[in-house]
Amino acid sequence: MQKNNLKSTIKKTLISENKVDMNQLLIKYYLADISAELDHFTEQEVCHLLTLASDKVRVKIFSQLSNAKKIAIVDVMDESDFLTLFLRMQPDERANLFNLLALSIQKKLMSQISQAERDDIWRLASYKESEVGSIMNSDYALLGAKLTAAQGISLLQKYASDTEIIYQAYIINSMNQLVGTVSLRDLIIAEPTTIISDLMTKNPITVRAESPREVAVQLIAKYDLISLPVINDQDKMVGIVTYDDAMDVAAAEVDDDFYKSSAVGSLVGNIKEASIKLLYQKRVFWLVLLVFGNVFSGAGIAYFEDTITAYIALVFFLPLLVDSGGNAGSQSATLMVRALATGEIYLKDWASMLGREFIVAGLLGLTMAVAVSVLGLWRGGPEIALVVALTMQLIVVVGSVVGMSLPFLLSRFKMDPAAASAPLITSIADGIGVIIYFTIATWILDFPAAI
Amino acid sequence: MQKNNLKSTIKKTLISENKVDMNQLLIKYYLADISAELDHFTEQEVCHLLTLASDKVRVKIFSQLSNAKKIAIVDVMDESDFLTLFLRMQPDERANLFNLLALSIQKKLMSQISQAERDDIWRLASYKESEVGSIMNSDYALLGAKLTAAQGISLLQKYASDTEIIYQAYIINSMNQLVGTVSLRDLIIAEPTTIISDLMTKNPITVRAESPREVAVQLIAKYDLISLPVINDQDKMVGIVTYDDAMDVAAAEVDDDFYKSSAVGSLVGNIKEASIKLLYQKRVFWLVLLVFGNVFSGAGIAYFEDTITAYIALVFFLPLLVDSGGNAGSQSATLMVRALATGEIYLKDWASMLGREFIVAGLLGLTMAVAVSVLGLWRGGPEIALVVALTMQLIVVVGSVVGMSLPFLLSRFKMDPAAASAPLITSIADGIGVIIYFTIATWILDFPAAI
Repeated sequence: MQKNNLKSTIKKTLISENKVDMNQLLIKYYLADISAELDHFTEQEVCHLLTLASDKVRVKIFSQLSNAKKIAIVDVMDESDFLTLFLRMQPDERANLFNLLALSIQKKLMSQISQAERDDIWRLASYKESEVGSIMNSDYALLGAKLTAAQGISLLQKYASDTEIIYQAYIINSMNQLVGTVSLRDLIIAEPTTIISDLMTKNPITVRAESPREVAVQLIAKYDLISLPVINDQDKMVGIVTYDDAMDVAAAEVDDDFYKSSAVGSLVGNIKEASIKLLYQKRVFWLVLLVFGNVFSGAGIAYFEDTITAYIALVFFLPLLVDSGGNAGSQSATLMVRALATGEIYLKDWASMLGREFIVAGLLGLTMAVAVSVLGLWRGGPEIALVVALTMQLIVVVGSVVGMSLPFLLSRFKMDPAAASAPLITSIADGIGVIIYFTIATWILDFPAAI
Repeated sequence: MQKNNLKSTIKKTLISENKVDMNQLLIKYYLADISAELDHFTEQEVCHLLTLASDKVRVKIFSQLSNAKKIAIVDVMDESDFLTLFLRMQPDERANLFNLLALSIQKKLMSQISQAERDDIWRLASYKESEVGSIMNSDYALLGAKLTAAQGISLLQKYASDTEIIYQAYIINSMNQLVGTVSLRDLIIAEPTTIISDLMTKNPITVRAESPREVAVQLIAKYDLISLPVINDQDKMVGIVTYDDAMDVAAAEVDDDFYKSSAVGSLVGNIKEASIKLLYQKRVFWLVLLVFGNVFSGAGIAYFEDTITAYIALVFFLPLLVDSGGNAGSQSATLMVRALATGEIYLKDWASMLGREFIVAGLLGLTMAVAVSVLGLWRGGPEIALVVALTMQLIVVVGSVVGMSLPFLLSRFKMDPAAASAPLITSIADGIGVIIYFTIATWILDFPAAI
């Protein structure tokens, strides 16, 4: 109900062209709600709304729009209006937008702004999307170490008008190196005459701009930070990562790992709005690749055709046995992918993890071997029971070890461990499973393999 | 290196029994680091350390320990020391600990504290772990609507000593209903004489205490909040959820969904420290269950034994075809599980999602049918090519529709959609795949099915 009201109210106010009404409306509702609504408006309508909004509100609303909407608006907006808007954006958001613009627009923008702004944009825009630098903000509150708490508070008051985070302030030395942090909370609790250098935390948690952005998320979560200072390779402070950006990154990373776990390419944006074409593209590659991967299982079966023809009951246990290897492997892989992603384990832990995997998988295999041997007895007698039990034990151990090792292997070669998806491991385990099964069957049941 | 230093420094200071040294040490390092280190100490050592620490530091360190460590310490700590510590804990953490204690200890605690404290603990401890109430804090900053900004700041200064969040303050009416929020930022920017009711945000975002805790996480992320006010069924304010607790909950929920995606039960704690027994228990249930699930695929194969014996080449394509159905199904399920978890889609969206799934899966099936028909031509001629192509088309569509529908179905019956794991869907798709494959083969190749 409220959402429908918001939409029609915005439309009505747009038509009235009344600036006062529009600004009252835009202040009354939450930015996140307004922006979500505007993503369904045409770019002309949004552009019209932005011209009616006050300077301050305009930049806030524009910053919250989806990337697609921002780019569409740049195309229809008056050039000089856009330049003003662009220069008022938060540095991190401005750099992200800059990276999305056409080269011709990038050049035009750069020619119209000051050297300092240009350097700031280039610097922020040069970080890779996976690096901390790409999510950092270069606007933050700096305080002098020799100021008093009262002076610090009044400086933060001034910062408040155009700095995103004023609850944490940073103290740097003459080399631009971070020497301490102080919170607004510390400042207001302290006696007004206390010197900041006596108040500040002297060994602040920091992150390097080139580090993977997950590291920043982990540090913010671990130390309950509101903002995390970012330093460059010369230990100079270059920006901060805020807790709300960290939350967004965490959610995006999780989406990514989730989709990869089922061999879906990374999907950006809302699934309800994703086009058929996009969904097809994100899924088709792995599906077709895995078809060809499964040819190996088929080839294994063809190799043992004589054994199978002579003892067709073996086929009964085929899906059950090979799937168990894949299932155990997917479990192991998932545990490792998640533990690697959250930093619980590292590459060097492979050997120690392997030892435990052998024991756990051995026990799991034993349990499942007992279960399946009952089925074997019932369907084909004691010899078949022995074949399926031995096969199960071996398949579960091999599947688990492959599943737990693959994420480490991918990580070792600088690939994303999350690419060790359940379907991939299932395909590998299937191929290995077929060979184990029929080799054991041929050996115990004494059927000659086709050569 | 630094971590080893911290460990040995703590041990040395423990032996020296020097309170001043110990408190300097505890203040010098970050709480998160100290607590992580202490989880490897014995409960006697940690208890000893806590007695050396100052009142304020003691409660902070204790609160950050793992639940297992906290409970172990309660057993060895002096009773009256524990009571003092317990009463100084943050209300939300205190209530969580209370729920973990033995009934005899709960009773003893309750008998020694005031009625007001008792009510607060009962109230917080009565919420289910999945509800917002279980993660809310009942300590927050309240301000009167008629105060000036300057008066508000000086009240917040007083709150600062024992309230977790002072950057957001809340304004309630005489019925305890929330009427507005004001941030410390707003207060320090404003003219000191401005009245708070003119400054405050009048339609604050709130969450109900009985709502699922994911809702609180989503609201905090969407509106970039530092804290989210919680109201009860009479619209009275009962607590707040802080951004750092929301980040922890988000991470825990994600772990849960991840493990479920590969049929691993929810795993609490660090994988490096998980015991063999725990890992076995978390994995064995689903693995054994799925073995019996796969019996259906086996039964399907047994039913078509004559077809298979007469045309053994069909077995070559068996893993390839049935796996494709499972793979496509896992992809669809993952997309839906994640979209349901993040609130992108709801139960009511099933029908519209189903329509698109048919189109996407139809196109995917077509692509894969073309790929597999090439293999079919090569291995068995045009008739086999037709069989495998038709089977592939049908299997991919059916697998996808099952995969996308299962999370909705689970959700409909109040179960966790994440239980629609890749292995479960693979097993279902295998069974359906076997039937589709051999039915089509029997029909086209004109072999009689065994009856």
